[in-house]
Order: sequence, then structure tokens, then C-alpha cells
Amino acid sequence: MVYLDHAASTPMYPEAVDAMTAQLTRIGNPSSLHAAGRAARRVVEESREAIAAALDARPGEVVFTSGGTESDNLALKGLYWARREADPRRTRILSTTVEHHAVLDPLHWLAEHEHAEVELLPVDHLGRLDVEAFRAAVERDPASVALVSVMWANNEVGTVQPIADVVAIAHAHDIPVHTDAVQAVGQVPVDFAASGVDLLTLTAHKVGGPYGVGALVVRRELALTPQLHGGGQERDVRSGTIDTPAIAGFATAVELAVKRQAEHAERVCALRNDLVSRVTEVVPDAGVNGDPDCAPDHRLPGNAHLTFPGCEGDSLLMLLDARGIACSTGSACSAGVPQPSHVLLAMGHDDEQARSSLRFSLGHSSTQADVDALVEAIGPVVERARAAGAVSGIGGSARKAV
Amino acid sequence: MVYLDHAASTPMYPEAVDAMTAQLTRIGNPSSLHAAGRAARRVVEESREAIAAALDARPGEVVFTSGGTESDNLALKGLYWARREADPRRTRILSTTVEHHAVLDPLHWLAEHEHAEVELLPVDHLGRLDVEAFRAAVERDPASVALVSVMWANNEVGTVQPIADVVAIAHAHDIPVHTDAVQAVGQVPVDFAASGVDLLTLTAHKVGGPYGVGALVVRRELALTPQLHGGGQERDVRSGTIDTPAIAGFATAVELAVKRQAEHAERVCALRNDLVSRVTEVVPDAGVNGDPDCAPDHRLPGNAHLTFPGCEGDSLLMLLDARGIACSTGSACSAGVPQPSHVLLAMGHDDEQARSSLRFSLGHSSTQADVDALVEAIGPVVERARAAGAVSGIGGSARKAV
Repeated sequence: MVYLDHAASTPMYPEAVDAMTAQLTRIGNPSSLHAAGRAARRVVEESREAIAAALDARPGEVVFTSGGTESDNLALKGLYWARREADPRRTRILSTTVEHHAVLDPLHWLAEHEHAEVELLPVDHLGRLDVEAFRAAVERDPASVALVSVMWANNEVGTVQPIADVVAIAHAHDIPVHTDAVQAVGQVPVDFAASGVDLLTLTAHKVGGPYGVGALVVRRELALTPQLHGGGQERDVRSGTIDTPAIAGFATAVELAVKRQAEHAERVCALRNDLVSRVTEVVPDAGVNGDPDCAPDHRLPGNAHLTFPGCEGDSLLMLLDARGIACSTGSACSAGVPQPSHVLLAMGHDDEQARSSLRFSLGHSSTQADVDALVEAIGPVVERARAAGAVSGIGGSARKAV
Repeated sequence: MVYLDHAASTPMYPEAVDAMTAQLTRIGNPSSLHAAGRAARRVVEESREAIAAALDARPGEVVFTSGGTESDNLALKGLYWARREADPRRTRILSTTVEHHAVLDPLHWLAEHEHAEVELLPVDHLGRLDVEAFRAAVERDPASVALVSVMWANNEVGTVQPIADVVAIAHAHDIPVHTDAVQAVGQVPVDFAASGVDLLTLTAHKVGGPYGVGALVVRRELALTPQLHGGGQERDVRSGTIDTPAIAGFATAVELAVKRQAEHAERVCALRNDLVSRVTEVVPDAGVNGDPDCAPDHRLPGNAHLTFPGCEGDSLLMLLDARGIACSTGSACSAGVPQPSHVLLAMGHDDEQARSSLRFSLGHSSTQADVDALVEAIGPVVERARAAGAVSGIGGSARKAV
């Protein structure tokens, strides 16, 4: 299989598999007081220290969760509730139009259910936050802002956001900043302390660790209302039995991914640039989305996002899949009804362009042979998708978004 | 190690380890549309079918979560929000004084934060819900009851609750019933359809599966407000990347535990009865807590809960631990400060009795040798704990609860 969907999930490092499976056959709930429980607890705390060290955070700032979605929900709801309780005027939440659904959907719920005023700020044609619009939104009434949430890097088009600017503007008014760094960790340098962000989401299965575990890094001074109540694990911020084996695999993966980040970025960026230049040679009218600059403050190194005019993205995906090539449309698919990507729409693409796009994402196991296979397949696949599109009316004015 | 703490976490079945590790090295997010994603999705859906079949539920009723705490939180908050939204008068929640903290703490939060009126109904000296008190609470004003939550079996003393009575009383007024069956599945027969309950919590690591995964079984007709918002996984009730490997291990464990339940119960009940009779022979003034009847509608077969007058439970635990025997005080320990068990207090024990108790819980890997080891150790251990207690004032009137 040619796997070009590392942004959806990347294979576990063998070292992470080993670290995890070594714990699967051990017994002892890390909250138990006996020797077996204490041994499990030691594994958890050493894992916490390893993750903290890799991200330049303090161990006490790492809160283990079940993954990115839970971390984002905890950050947004937990902070909104805590900040509003401390000062009822703080009901505004500032974010961007290109966030992942794990941020957009909790924000929507907070608006519907908790009277939050959510403002999604615009991005430019590269998918990057309009910093001046953000500054204006903050300065319009800083005392009413509960929190800010801006992703570190976009999951669809790979654009890195101006986190330093966001932090500077928000902190000038003591407003805490959350960032979803799920796609960033291991791909670009992520330094929690230096970045100044107050809360940072990461998840294991995007960095070579297992599914089902992630973390929210939370600056120690910050009060958060818990979202899962119960046994009081994780400093009472996140109750639930602690998942020792997954945490051990997570820590191994984060350590490796961060240690290898620079070398990894250079390697996959070269593969990515080769993919883009050769695919656009075969399909000259293909458009390349996101920031063309591969610098770590510009784009994720392994992401290539392309628009193929006149093709339905899902058709391309399935035709490539039939040739053993796995990629993604990068668009949410709800109940089988393809929706144009909210990210591409926010970047100024029209519905049709947004539905004609594919995301190829490279990762630690990607090779030159993967790129070669895609380059060989893409010509005939685009041709077939265009023929199918012409029949079904794709590219014509009769086409309706569904 | 003599492991007598299966109620805290039981070892994984080797078959569950195999089912899980086989998936760890496979790639593909089950929400991805390509072949790797579809293969992962197949594993998830077959696991869902296996769990549904084992519990006599429909596959569409099984919602995967990160474990028991998340399932309980989702059941209580999700149902409270949905029912109150449908009818703002429904603000009462009826539960019991002996629930797990994963139920009590969300209820406390709903009372503090969401204006719920929580009524915790009393239990008798065996730890069993007072059905007439429950009936009276319902009938006082049925239209104001949002939901009922009564655990299937108590995690500390093993008492099985009268779920059939609870369901009959609640359903007479169309009130949905949630049950935390974390301790019950695999230990006593649990039939979702026949029980009549509307929501049921289970978790993998108590039945021989991995940490980090559980389920909420939800009757299909029931509307639940989601607690984790995002990608829309699990019928939009629980967003978050689906944890294929853990789910495969979970399904294998549930299948085995349910298939072996009757034989398991008979075997561990015999061990448990032997443990209780021989320990009380060595320590004649030890008290045995919970229902003495081992029938599946009376108590969990593997639970032995004993009070050792004049001993601090934590001292006993540590002294046994030093001899390689793992058990639990069955009481919550918050920030290192031992608290008397709320379950024992609710059963009419005083603070001192509540703090002088130990839970021994047997499971699928327990043997006669484990019981023999405990019987051999318990005499000298109790003697030493009493000596220490006499010095520190345990058993004396000067002792204060902390």
C-alpha cells in the first residue's frame, strides 16, 4: 500500500509498540496503593516527564486525556466555564474559520448551550489568520474575551499559524491562548514554554503513538473546570482510570518524533516538493493550496494539498484507492454526504474548487517509491475522474453543492 | 504477587492482548475512506457486534468511549441536558448514596453548575437501595424527574442492586434509567434488553480487556446531548478518533468474560467463601460487609469486604503489600488524605469502622494459593496493625476523622 494519509493517522513507531505491549501484560491500576499500582504509576510519571521534556513544559502541566478531541473540548469548555465564572462579562471566544471540527464543534455547542459569543476570524488565501482582524477583535473589548483558540498548523492545507503574534496580542490583555497542535508536534518545532501559549493539545496517533491517548498541556497557574468528573485523576482536571500502556507508547513516540523532527522535516519536505512538482507536471492545471514556503513557520513539511479542476475529490480518492494509494479529500464527510471543505471555502475557494481537492500527507514511513507511485497513477486517474465528472455535470454550471 | 484487587483492574486475557496487538501495527483511521480505513472500520463494527451480542443489545446501541468514567459522565450529563431541554421542568435526578465517584461527581457538578436537584436515596445495612424510598421519591413528582441512575453492583462491598424494581418504578412514569455495570459485566448475568435499563456503562479493563476503552450502551430511541464534540464519530454522540486496537481487545474480553461468566462465578465464589470463612477464623472479630448470599442478584461472586476492628485500613494494606499481597481499602484517597468510605458510611458504619476495612476482590486469574497466602498472612498483619493503631490512638475516642 502507498500510504499518503499520515495526517489522518501515522503508523506507530516499532519502539512505541514495544513500550506499549510491554505494559499490556502487567497488572496494577496506577491509582492503587500497592506495589503493582505504584509500579504502574511510576511508568505514568516517567512518561509524563518525557513528554514534558520533549515539549519544554513542566511535568505537572501535562494532563493525559483520551486524545485530541477530548483535549480540545476540555481546553475550550473548561477554560470558558472557569473564566466566565471568575468574571461573568467574559463570554467572547475568538478563534479562526479554519479550525478542526474538534474545536469548531465545541465552540458551536458553547454558543448554543452556554451563551458564548464565538467569533471566527478570517484567514488569507494561504489559510493564515488575518492578524490585524484578530487584533481588532481583541481590542474592541478585551475584558469580554474568555479565551482565544488558534491551531498551530492546519490539518488540511498545512499552513502554520502566527502563534507568536496571537499570544502577544492576547497576553497584552491577559487573555489565555489555546492551540490545537495535533498536526504540528513532530513536524515543526513546538516549544510550549517559549511559545507562550497557555494550553496546547496533542495526540499520540499523529506522532507515531497509539490511538486513544493524548494530552492537554496546561500552564500550571491556569484554572480549568473539569469536563469528566470522578475519581480525581490528573490533578482532578480529568478523571478516569489512567491508561498506563497507551501512555508509555505515547511518551516513546513523542520523544522519538521530537528528537527526529528536524531531520524528518527535511526528508519529507523534499519528498513533498518532489510530489508537488511532478504531479503538477503531469496535471498542469492542478492548483497547489496553502503556503508554498516549506519553512517551519510557514507550512507542515509533509503536507501537499492540490486542486484538480473538473474532478470530484471523492472520485479521485476512490480511483487512487483502487490502485493501492491511500489519501484523503481533507473534507469532512458527514453521513455519506460530501461537504466542501470549510477550510478551502474560508481561503476563498468556491464550492467546486473545494470539492476538487486532495490532501497527500507524508510521514515517517514515506519513501520516494510512494511519490513515484502517485506520480505514475495521477495522470490516468485525473483523466478518468474528469470523464466521470463531465458525465455527471461536474465542472458545469448545473452542479449544486449537497 | 498475590493479586486480590481485580475490582480495581483485572489482568488482560491473553486472547485480548493478541487481538489488540494484532491491530497496533496496522494502519488506517476507521473514519478514512480508503481501503486501510475501511479495514479498520470493519474491525470496529465487528467488535461492536460482538459486544452487543454478548450483552443482548443491538450493535447500533453500543457507543464506544474512553472508559467507565466517560460513559457515566456522558450518560448523566447527556441525558440530563436532553431531557431538560425537551421539558424544562425535568430537573431532578434520583440516584443512590453508594454510587461510584464517576457517578457521584458528575451529579455534584450538575447540581452546582446546571441547577439539577440531585436526590441520593438511602441503602440498607447490606448496601442495597431502599426500593420504597426510591418509589416515594419518584411518585412525589414524576414529571420533574430527568433521569435515574442506580449501579448494577457496588464496587466496594459487591452488593447487587434491585435493578428490575428500579426500572419498573421509573418506567411506569417514562423516566429513563442509567446503570453503571462496570463491576457487573462478566461477574453476574447482564442482559441489556431484558433488564429494561436505557443506558448501561461498561469498561474493558474490568473484564479482561485494555485500559482506555469502554462503552455506553444506549437504547436507540433515546436522545443524548453529546459531551465530546468534533468529528461526529459514534453517531455524533461521542466524537474522537476511534481506537481500533483497544476496541478489538475490548470485544474479545467481553465475549470471553460473558461466555465464561457462570463457570467463573461459581469458581471465584467458592474461593471467596473460603477466604471469608478462613480469615474470620483467624480474626474472629472481623466483620463481613455486604450481602452474605452469593446468588447473582445478591452479590458479586469475587468480592470479599471485611472490617478489622482497631486497625487502620491503609496500614493493613501496606503490611499485606510488604508480604506481596495486593488488595484495596475500597475507600477513596484524595491528595493522600484517607477518607472513610462513603459506601460504608451509607450502610450505617461509623467513621472508625469505615476506615478499618479492606476489599479483597478475586478474578479470572485467582487461585486457591492466593487465598492460602492471605489466610497465612492476615493474623500477624492484623496484630501489627492493631499494635500500631494502639500507639497512634486508633480505636480510641481521641481519634478524629481527617
